[in-house]
Amino acid sequence: MPYIPLEAHLPGITGLLEYSPESGEPIRELTQVLLRGPSTLTEGERELIATAVSHRNACRFCTTAHTAIADVLFGEHETSAKVKENIMTAPVSGKMKALLTIALQVAESGKSVTAGSIQRAKDEGAIDVEIHDTVLIASLFCLYNRYVDGLATVTPNNPDFYEGMANRLKEHGYVRLEEGYDHLKGQHIE
Amino acid sequence: MPYIPLEAHLPGITGLLEYSPESGEPIRELTQVLLRGPSTLTEGERELIATAVSHRNACRFCTTAHTAIADVLFGEHETSAKVKENIMTAPVSGKMKALLTIALQVAESGKSVTAGSIQRAKDEGAIDVEIHDTVLIASLFCLYNRYVDGLATVTPNNPDFYEGMANRLKEHGYVRLEEGYDHLKGQHIE
Repeated sequence: MPYIPLEAHLPGITGLLEYSPESGEPIRELTQVLLRGPSTLTEGERELIATAVSHRNACRFCTTAHTAIADVLFGEHETSAKVKENIMTAPVSGKMKALLTIALQVAESGKSVTAGSIQRAKDEGAIDVEIHDTVLIASLFCLYNRYVDGLATVTPNNPDFYEGMANRLKEHGYVRLEEGYDHLKGQHIE
Repeated sequence: MPYIPLEAHLPGITGLLEYSPESGEPIRELTQVLLRGPSTLTEGERELIATAVSHRNACRFCTTAHTAIADVLFGEHETSAKVKENIMTAPVSGKMKALLTIALQVAESGKSVTAGSIQRAKDEGAIDVEIHDTVLIASLFCLYNRYVDGLATVTPNNPDFYEGMANRLKEHGYVRLEEGYDHLKGQHIE
């Protein structure tokens, strides 16, 4: 049970963003800019960074949610599964392996990022803004994972919940739905 | 030396927010809402949460900056120093001791926050929104600390830099200065 009163039909991060709209709005905006804004990284690649960091932080809600979104974007389940298993053998580019390595270092601590891992990313063709965005996306998910688990929000078990969310996010991005979320009342999240 | 090209007169977080204005703007807005928006926690108390988390994450730039801001707000140096030393013996209320304890648990991991530490905060008079804001402020500084150190930004040694920054933030809050930051060119940050 969450440590503060949250809407029962809005598990994980979704109830928190509605609980405090004043902070929820800039969090949504930051996420939209980083994960959906113009970038030389694809939306799928950026979701892999979110997935890998959430997995490293053992945040089940965020890991399951961003796995589902990555899978919808890639049209398959293999890439996200293998990234969570082992970045170095996952079916992603050399540049992505290097960026995901940096992301996991960020998850540990800012100081864990090494000059060597940055150099490897540059050698693999990563440009400055991709390195910047990787560090900031990883940092943002260190915020999300702590926000979601630190308040003991509910983690649905029903895969339909995450699939519905992934399809909504693919279509609308991370901005708040104009119609709100009352239509989700009664969805099966057990 | 930072891993990406940043303006030399804008060390720590300041150069990052200018490097990427699209992400910088919602980060500033989120910080302004949480640290300066309407709250039953004082601005000084919220800066103590930022200071304690940054100190726990060993981010020297953020720790020194938010210590300076807390000190300007409290008009003394003792409170922030003692909070960094030992929360339980620091000259803050029982409620703040309980909230700072939660903040340090968040710094470790979302899952490290215990039902017992939440209950202690409630017993000490903390209301739901104070618990929410404590967890989110602590999470936000886990983002900041990683962003600042993960890109190896410069940490000034000159105390005048932090004092100038603290006075600017006391007066203007966390919103971007309308006139920009060119007037800081040539400031002594060694």
